[in-house]
Amino acid sequence: MDFSAIFLPELLGTAMLTLLGCGVVANVVLPRTKGNGGGWLLINFGWGLAVFAGVFIAYSTGAHINPAVTVGLLAGDLPFFAGNEELGLPAIDNTFSNALVYFLAQFIGAFIGAVVMWLAYKKHFDLEAPAPSKLAVFATGPEVRSYGWNVVTEVVGTFVLVFVIVAFGFTPSGLGPLAVALLVVGIGASLGGPTGYAINPARDLGPRIAHALLPIQGKGASDWGYSWVPIVGPLVGGALGGLAGVQLL
Amino acid sequence: MDFSAIFLPELLGTAMLTLLGCGVVANVVLPRTKGNGGGWLLINFGWGLAVFAGVFIAYSTGAHINPAVTVGLLAGDLPFFAGNEELGLPAIDNTFSNALVYFLAQFIGAFIGAVVMWLAYKKHFDLEAPAPSKLAVFATGPEVRSYGWNVVTEVVGTFVLVFVIVAFGFTPSGLGPLAVALLVVGIGASLGGPTGYAINPARDLGPRIAHALLPIQGKGASDWGYSWVPIVGPLVGGALGGLAGVQLL
Amino acid sequence: MDFSAIFLPELLGTAMLTLLGCGVVANVVLPRTKGNGGGWLLINFGWGLAVFAGVFIAYSTGAHINPAVTVGLLAGDLPFFAGNEELGLPAIDNTFSNALVYFLAQFIGAFIGAVVMWLAYKKHFDLEAPAPSKLAVFATGPEVRSYGWNVVTEVVGTFVLVFVIVAFGFTPSGLGPLAVALLVVGIGASLGGPTGYAINPARDLGPRIAHALLPIQGKGASDWGYSWVPIVGPLVGGALGGLAGVQLL
Amino acid sequence: MDFSAIFLPELLGTAMLTLLGCGVVANVVLPRTKGNGGGWLLINFGWGLAVFAGVFIAYSTGAHINPAVTVGLLAGDLPFFAGNEELGLPAIDNTFSNALVYFLAQFIGAFIGAVVMWLAYKKHFDLEAPAPSKLAVFATGPEVRSYGWNVVTEVVGTFVLVFVIVAFGFTPSGLGPLAVALLVVGIGASLGGPTGYAINPARDLGPRIAHALLPIQGKGASDWGYSWVPIVGPLVGGALGGLAGVQLL
Repeated sequence: MDFSAIFLPELLGTAMLTLLGCGVVANVVLPRTKGNGGGWLLINFGWGLAVFAGVFIAYSTGAHINPAVTVGLLAGDLPFFAGNEELGLPAIDNTFSNALVYFLAQFIGAFIGAVVMWLAYKKHFDLEAPAPSKLAVFATGPEVRSYGWNVVTEVVGTFVLVFVIVAFGFTPSGLGPLAVALLVVGIGASLGGPTGYAINPARDLGPRIAHALLPIQGKGASDWGYSWVPIVGPLVGGALGGLAGVQLL
Repeated sequence: MDFSAIFLPELLGTAMLTLLGCGVVANVVLPRTKGNGGGWLLINFGWGLAVFAGVFIAYSTGAHINPAVTVGLLAGDLPFFAGNEELGLPAIDNTFSNALVYFLAQFIGAFIGAVVMWLAYKKHFDLEAPAPSKLAVFATGPEVRSYGWNVVTEVVGTFVLVFVIVAFGFTPSGLGPLAVALLVVGIGASLGGPTGYAINPARDLGPRIAHALLPIQGKGASDWGYSWVPIVGPLVGGALGGLAGVQLL
Repeated sequence: MDFSAIFLPELLGTAMLTLLGCGVVANVVLPRTKGNGGGWLLINFGWGLAVFAGVFIAYSTGAHINPAVTVGLLAGDLPFFAGNEELGLPAIDNTFSNALVYFLAQFIGAFIGAVVMWLAYKKHFDLEAPAPSKLAVFATGPEVRSYGWNVVTEVVGTFVLVFVIVAFGFTPSGLGPLAVALLVVGIGASLGGPTGYAINPARDLGPRIAHALLPIQGKGASDWGYSWVPIVGPLVGGALGGLAGVQLL
Repeated sequence: MDFSAIFLPELLGTAMLTLLGCGVVANVVLPRTKGNGGGWLLINFGWGLAVFAGVFIAYSTGAHINPAVTVGLLAGDLPFFAGNEELGLPAIDNTFSNALVYFLAQFIGAFIGAVVMWLAYKKHFDLEAPAPSKLAVFATGPEVRSYGWNVVTEVVGTFVLVFVIVAFGFTPSGLGPLAVALLVVGIGASLGGPTGYAINPARDLGPRIAHALLPIQGKGASDWGYSWVPIVGPLVGGALGGLAGVQLL
């Protein structure tokens, strides 16, 4: 197990992801912000660039920052990180015990990022706003509630994410972290319509727990009834994406 | 003929294209989605990034994912894929029998992508909406119906696509699949206004067949009267683009 | 003089520029297009990606596609194109006679691109719309008419364009044509507000002549009174940008 | 001290930053501009691409163009510029006297850029508009005034900026100046909602002084009561970002 090599970068990368990702939703849905009502494309770029920043921070772990990616690599039996000799970064093996470190770091990081986001938007959370809008900053929710179909949507979106990430490995480009950032912009634009594209169990559960624990003014319920959908859907989609991706090799 | 090397990657890449491309239209035009009314630039980025994802998946075939590109390379007598020794990927020759494999894979893939998109947006297709909106998710249609001029618009758009793609081959950049993705964003922004920029016969016909076959609630006709325009226009434009492109060499 | 090496690529690159650039304005301002009312950012991306496509086409001439760039290189005594040995492309010297070939190609190309754009949007030009909107598709115009200050705005915008383009030459990046494309998106977003950022005499004059000559339904005057502003401003700004840019070396 | 190597490029780069950055705000908030009411994403891209242009201009100094970046590198004991042998550019050492040259250049440059921006938008500043809108073009201001929480927001935003910039140094990518440009787009989208993301003391103070000194028609107060927030917040955030960033090495 490479606890020390994995834990902190992965935690910080995932914290960066939810800090910026939940931040753009706060900017669009909370009252009296500069970006209020800024539209779906703003949210898509915000989340995409949240991934961009997070991947730079967690480069030395392969920047999963998403349990669905880790599960996809597990399913495809692909290395967690290929290493980088020039930078003196060791490879990280695909083992179940390493995966557990990734998961732990991802969920804790996602929680921390949401807390910092709340601090940055504190005075806007204090203003009056519908409770569902305040929840929407933290966690995803479906526009048409139908657990089965909501799972399908999350499976498809996460399948695309992990399938294409695996394909990155054998397509030349100089884009580095921009490739996955743009992929996430695209998934949000195209497949985010029904459920808000969690496509990442940590991104949803970590901030949802933060919503439940933080003393947010005028907050409502944390919608635990839905909370399993953005966990199960992404894990299934990620595993399928990893299995499909290795067929391209 | 390189059936096995061409068929599956090209099919999967084209499926990715219509899954994400038709998906962004669903997000913008179907009721109660997160991206409802999100605007033309959102649609342009959605389609551009659909190409981005599709090109990664189909890298080993040269990522045509569009019969107009294949026809353009045929017309210009350019290799279908130059190969990549480092990755162990063989070149694919420009032959008519290979072209037939590309076409087959592209049309089947485009159909499959649209079906998966429908599953991801199932609950929103079930809501009440004008039948033409539901068709617009799958297939293109003109804002001012005039078959001759609509063909002209599609010829021009596809000419730009294939002409510039051929030019990619002799201009240094480290953009990889991002170059064609941004080109498609630009064509959509600039030349998509009259007909919705099919610029790809498979992208239009495959999903139109899906629209005709799927049990979509409250769907109307599939507008077969227009369906030849986004086939003929792109094929002519692609051939012209390939012929013009080789003059730059 | 390198007439044959310069003329055709530069003409085609500039035609691509105005085809896509004027196209995005048509999409936003003409009635019943898909992008009608699509906003300023859509226009900025449309023009930026028009540059992107044009630069690929005219790579072998250094892709000026703008007399202000040629003038800036003249002023800074910089090579028109450094050449590319690997691709077998010869350098193009900075001489006044070569500059004349660039100018000729740029103005003719810009005219041709606008004509093709008109064909692509023919049925929308045939619809009723205010004459100034139809002119705006072709040529720039000020929101507050004040020739002196309008010149200032064009000088500043073109200075930025040429100054930063010169700086590209000694800053490492793998962006290729994307760098100038994004620079143009930025100049449009930031400095395009008062005059619509011609920042290119050919981009304005070529399409303005097309507007005057083409049988556009319901068109008004071509506003020749303003037409010198987007020529003089960009030429002055370009020369200053070239002179300033070489100081960075 | 490397006065001559630092001063001019850093001044020009920061001037480019505020010219384009304040310019996009002018385009969105001043009356009768082409981009009036263009939305938050337009502002985010405008500022991000302002950084893009500025970084190209100031490449030879490491392109801090922001005192918070300089402070972050001081705190992390990182070189101000690593140098580039191929281009003959010397490294710049991390010393306090060098830092003073950076600061001086940054504040003067930011002032100059705002003055030029005012010239480019002169006729629009002359139109009637609310005094706070005219100030907003130059300097940031909070939507909910609460100095303590406003500082928190600026600390968080600048921490992200400097932390990720430090991480750029040890993550491979061919993006060059685009990486920091997109990072700034992301910070604006995600963390700019409450205070307008100064995240740069020079970007705020330089233009605020310009606002105070220039004969802007119908201008109001320059809000000096708030002016310390976008200085203190970014300096603290930048120092923390630099300290955290070096832990990733």
